[in-house]
Amino acid sequence: MRIERVAIIGLGLLGSSIALALRERAPGIATSGFDANPKVRARAEELELVSEMCESPATAVADADLVVLCVPVGVMRDAALAIADALPEGAIVSDVGSSKQSVAKALAEALPGRHVIPAHPVAGTEESGPEAGFATLFVGRWCILTPPGDCDEEALEALSNFWAGLGAKVEIMDAAHHDLVLAVTSHIPHLIAFTIVGTASDLEEVTRSEVIKYSAGGFRDFTRIAASDPVMWRDVFLNNREAVLEMLGRFTEDLTALQRAIRSGDGETLHDLFARTRAIRRQVIEEGQDQSTPDFGRSH
Amino acid sequence: MRIERVAIIGLGLLGSSIALALRERAPGIATSGFDANPKVRARAEELELVSEMCESPATAVADADLVVLCVPVGVMRDAALAIADALPEGAIVSDVGSSKQSVAKALAEALPGRHVIPAHPVAGTEESGPEAGFATLFVGRWCILTPPGDCDEEALEALSNFWAGLGAKVEIMDAAHHDLVLAVTSHIPHLIAFTIVGTASDLEEVTRSEVIKYSAGGFRDFTRIAASDPVMWRDVFLNNREAVLEMLGRFTEDLTALQRAIRSGDGETLHDLFARTRAIRRQVIEEGQDQSTPDFGRSH
Repeated sequence: MRIERVAIIGLGLLGSSIALALRERAPGIATSGFDANPKVRARAEELELVSEMCESPATAVADADLVVLCVPVGVMRDAALAIADALPEGAIVSDVGSSKQSVAKALAEALPGRHVIPAHPVAGTEESGPEAGFATLFVGRWCILTPPGDCDEEALEALSNFWAGLGAKVEIMDAAHHDLVLAVTSHIPHLIAFTIVGTASDLEEVTRSEVIKYSAGGFRDFTRIAASDPVMWRDVFLNNREAVLEMLGRFTEDLTALQRAIRSGDGETLHDLFARTRAIRRQVIEEGQDQSTPDFGRSH
Repeated sequence: MRIERVAIIGLGLLGSSIALALRERAPGIATSGFDANPKVRARAEELELVSEMCESPATAVADADLVVLCVPVGVMRDAALAIADALPEGAIVSDVGSSKQSVAKALAEALPGRHVIPAHPVAGTEESGPEAGFATLFVGRWCILTPPGDCDEEALEALSNFWAGLGAKVEIMDAAHHDLVLAVTSHIPHLIAFTIVGTASDLEEVTRSEVIKYSAGGFRDFTRIAASDPVMWRDVFLNNREAVLEMLGRFTEDLTALQRAIRSGDGETLHDLFARTRAIRRQVIEEGQDQSTPDFGRSH
């Protein structure tokens, strides 16, 4: 099974990055694209993101070997229904959504009997839209595939090769486990960042101007994540509800324990934790998941 | 009042950065230094951080116009007592600690009748030690001075000029207000980061290896802050207890509200918050407190 024509549905940060990565790394693959927003379609056409910009999802997928749905997880079902009738026999349908059980269910129901293989490239920035994409977004990042139990082996291999071709490292995982892992490595960090930025901007005793002036004390790091796409993240929390609530419970327990340590002046508990977390940073860098330059290499 | 000789007590990230900034931007100012750790003293000497490395804090401050205590806030009192007898008449004593009410009290009690002006440059990285410093750390960052009510105006002006000379923007603030502002812009963000990194590394269902592999989903940002100096941060939480607990209460309330929104499927509440927080990021960048390049300018 060879992938020679890829349809990208949704041309935001992820969709446009796939398009640019294909153009740079696999120029032999033809690309078609669609976005539900006419402004995004027009901008994507100006940027020449895909070989063929289409006015409907059905047109975009008509000759595709692989369709990648790059839309918020809350509209995956609608996006799948919109291509169902036009989808060629044997084409693979995948996605880039951050929750996988809900997407697997939505796609399987909308596209019965098709080669559905949900996927999640763990990569992104805080920017959105067709101008935010860049060809190297997936290089050295993990892409997690969550194939159903009856998945066609050739289709799985073809999709794995596709992501490897974009520079990603590919991992196969059970969808439920994916949702638990990403709840802790991505969803809870985002929820916390959104929360503290909201808390800080609502205070009466401290002005918003002060919060921004002194944000270099740590707060500014959180503002980056909290600038991520609102619709995408709303959908992630609503579609990975159970895992998020489970992990949030653990976080809150641990935070309450630290609160008690602070209140009671228990410096040992604080120091023990802070010394442990330092080691995690070193491992993240050793595993190539972040740069080693201090302060994210910010210019000073 | 002219500052011609500066004593730096404690040669970690902040102390060594002050030394390097002085060497680069004010080479006419003589510097002396001391660190309680003999290894740090030896390394600082190799790096030629100060004009004169001393074997005791008393020797270091003997001829100083300004003494800057760059030690964890929990040992400010001891550091002040150690210089009390040797401190020249009229010298200014300041610091770089992240909590100001506790430091103001400790220094005032240890050095009665002296020119004590607590200060806090809101700048740093996750690194520690004499090798972590760099000359441009304070450029464009705010340095908050919290002078006591009876502060000598000339001394205050001299200290303001000192920090401006290192590239910082100077602000005068009441110590209690400082502690509230920094609780939200720095202390709570650190506490949350330490907590989530601890939570993630203690899970049974998700391995530590998985947490690290998929950390690019957001978690890796938190590991940077959670790699900050354990002793420094233990002392901050113990010494700014009330403001930290107050702000932590606000954060927890807001997090609980979002938890309820997720549980009840209230997408509107989530979206409303996420759309608001995006604007804060823009303001942080507009105010020059972070770079505008996506993903902190990480190379992709």
